Amino acid sequence: MREFVNLKFEEMPKVWYNVLSDLPFKLDPPLDPETNNPMSPEKLLKVFPAPLLEQEVNDVDRFIEIPQEILREYAVYRPTPLIRANFLEEYLQTPAKIYYKYEGQSPTGSHKTNTALAQAYYNKISGVKKLYTETGAGQWGSALSYAGLKFGIDVNIYMVRVSFNQKPARKSIMNLFNGKVTPSPSKNTKSGRKYEENHPGSLGIAISEAMEEVLQSNDSKYALGSVLNHVLLHQTIIGLEIKKQLEKLNIQPDVIIGCHGGGSNFGGTILPFIPDKLSGKNIRFIACEPESCPTLTKGEYRYDFGDTAGFTPLLKMYTLGKDFVPPSIHAGGLRYHGAAPIISALLNHNLIEAKAFSQEETFKAARLFSKLEGIIPAPESSHAIAGAIKEALNAKKENKEKIIVFTLSGHGLFDLNAYI
Amino acid sequence: MREFVNLKFEEMPKVWYNVLSDLPFKLDPPLDPETNNPMSPEKLLKVFPAPLLEQEVNDVDRFIEIPQEILREYAVYRPTPLIRANFLEEYLQTPAKIYYKYEGQSPTGSHKTNTALAQAYYNKISGVKKLYTETGAGQWGSALSYAGLKFGIDVNIYMVRVSFNQKPARKSIMNLFNGKVTPSPSKNTKSGRKYEENHPGSLGIAISEAMEEVLQSNDSKYALGSVLNHVLLHQTIIGLEIKKQLEKLNIQPDVIIGCHGGGSNFGGTILPFIPDKLSGKNIRFIACEPESCPTLTKGEYRYDFGDTAGFTPLLKMYTLGKDFVPPSIHAGGLRYHGAAPIISALLNHNLIEAKAFSQEETFKAARLFSKLEGIIPAPESSHAIAGAIKEALNAKKENKEKIIVFTLSGHGLFDLNAYI
Repeated sequence: MREFVNLKFEEMPKVWYNVLSDLPFKLDPPLDPETNNPMSPEKLLKVFPAPLLEQEVNDVDRFIEIPQEILREYAVYRPTPLIRANFLEEYLQTPAKIYYKYEGQSPTGSHKTNTALAQAYYNKISGVKKLYTETGAGQWGSALSYAGLKFGIDVNIYMVRVSFNQKPARKSIMNLFNGKVTPSPSKNTKSGRKYEENHPGSLGIAISEAMEEVLQSNDSKYALGSVLNHVLLHQTIIGLEIKKQLEKLNIQPDVIIGCHGGGSNFGGTILPFIPDKLSGKNIRFIACEPESCPTLTKGEYRYDFGDTAGFTPLLKMYTLGKDFVPPSIHAGGLRYHGAAPIISALLNHNLIEAKAFSQEETFKAARLFSKLEGIIPAPESSHAIAGAIKEALNAKKENKEKIIVFTLSGHGLFDLNAYI
Repeated sequence: MREFVNLKFEEMPKVWYNVLSDLPFKLDPPLDPETNNPMSPEKLLKVFPAPLLEQEVNDVDRFIEIPQEILREYAVYRPTPLIRANFLEEYLQTPAKIYYKYEGQSPTGSHKTNTALAQAYYNKISGVKKLYTETGAGQWGSALSYAGLKFGIDVNIYMVRVSFNQKPARKSIMNLFNGKVTPSPSKNTKSGRKYEENHPGSLGIAISEAMEEVLQSNDSKYALGSVLNHVLLHQTIIGLEIKKQLEKLNIQPDVIIGCHGGGSNFGGTILPFIPDKLSGKNIRFIACEPESCPTLTKGEYRYDFGDTAGFTPLLKMYTLGKDFVPPSIHAGGLRYHGAAPIISALLNHNLIEAKAFSQEETFKAARLFSKLEGIIPAPESSHAIAGAIKEALNAKKENKEKIIVFTLSGHGLFDLNAYI
């Protein structure tokens, strides 16, 4: 009647996949904005611990072993199920088979936990006592708080003030897991004090505040929830599990779809399938983004800052410009001017595709999915649903029995106001 | 490292278990308050459709086949996993093995969906167009809205005003699934108009409003989320699945635990194990309730109304008295003066035990569980966690390798304020 493809823990991959080892081209390195030369490791070590920086630049090892300590924590919620969208297929009357990988069962409700646990662990073994980060909608801040608690490391979060006020439940989860949340802009930092009281804030300002704290301290580091190579690396657990699950079904995917903000859930989903593409298999990858923040579909491919204030190294990526202010849309997690350098390079080499979806189309897809499949998706994840529906309807037109796979990166239980 | 016991859909039981067929005693019948004689079927048919009334009084058939239409909907989220609480065991350093059945993955986050789908289906095939119900915390209203949408039946919910104001997310879920929510007391009904504007309301008043609507209409019925025999019957899918899952592990439970409000999740969990107890097996069942609403531990066993206004038949049950007003505690779903007649009779015959837990002890258990097991439990469900922890610590004292099983009836993502 309905297919759930569950893996036992013993069947879970015990490695992450490092796509850099397989790419037929080199990524352009991050540049130091002061010199326009590649960033020196010393400067980066002020911000990230050595093991994560090693992962960031490793283009040799195909697989990176997941430490036992992290596997133990993955076991709390992984492997996650691959679910056949039988009800959606039936409603669409499509010959396509649609499968979704559901990451919303993680302790804080999204895929972010996969890298949060890894980052907290590597910081811990590097002697770091405190992590600083920023959060917009709150998914990343929640995940890092949980991971910090698990590995005994303090987590301090600058949360965009408008979200801080609008999403009290997210703040409560961070507090439940001992995360310290400060609405940004705050009075704690020079970067924050520039703004008037009760300024609504932005991700850019929050990043600046968190970075300022790290740069002034000796025992703390910065943690980023997306964009960077090591973050995408940790997320490949998603795609590696999907691979095993499809093998169990003895089927080959024709299209793999994910929503795209900074690129971590999309990258985590598709990167393990890149070798198939490179070896000539007929497989497509589609990144789905909001029309209101069309980084991949309308951005330029060039060097740009990762934040608004210009604290970060310059990254080669698709960007709408660091000063781009997206309209206030509900998918807070996709409201980012840039994109992961790995995803950007793949797009530039035509190895992946990108499509933009309107807010209306996305919410329609989300409502339909809630009613048919019984899971209320996060607004971010709903872009992937919209993408899958589009592909399924194309398959119907062409009368082809395509295999469509997408990642449902999180649930939308904290975003219900958006549905009304 | 961690045990998830998953069943395939094909392994899911295709029947409900009817404990009435096995009990060595008869239940006292519901009485008509006007005559003090057993309720006439005609009067009950005004409120419930015939197939549900048949289930209510059936004490012959041991198993009731689940219709295909309901199985199809169960397939959206069932079978649910049985999870070994490895992290909790380790923390408690107990020789006990603790397993929990997790019902929070249902479309609206609790076990309520199991009976909501069944009730919507039987009403639908009986020609009912509209269902009326009340809801306190909102879990039942959400579940019935979802079920109504699935079977094409209108759902109207009177929601206690104070919860309506405090839990906007719950209201949003009901609306998402097309449920019509009215804060109670309202101006729609005679029962509601008695109260001043913006009265905070109570479950009793909300029931009266819903009942009044049903009694005045020809095409609508009433749906109840707990207490009645047919509701407990539908919930036995939980315990039947647990049985299969324990068989897979080849282990026998020593203690089975559930939280207790009206009795539906507790009953659904333990009733399938009653035959084992009756045949002499050494197995204990513990109902966990809040100290602030101690129906089973401090109530009297006698006939009482199911609601405050006195609209319902008289039920033989443990009760704190229909006018009992529990203090405002967070576990809204457990704030009920009475208990299911089946559970009450089992307690009266010493086949089950009941224990009360303080709010402080319960929240402590909930926080601990969130941190260790990565699931944020509903305040209601946390009483079962507190009960399981107590038993696990007893096992430690006695140095016995007990098997403890409890049901985690729902997640607490809409109750996060309570944690802070």
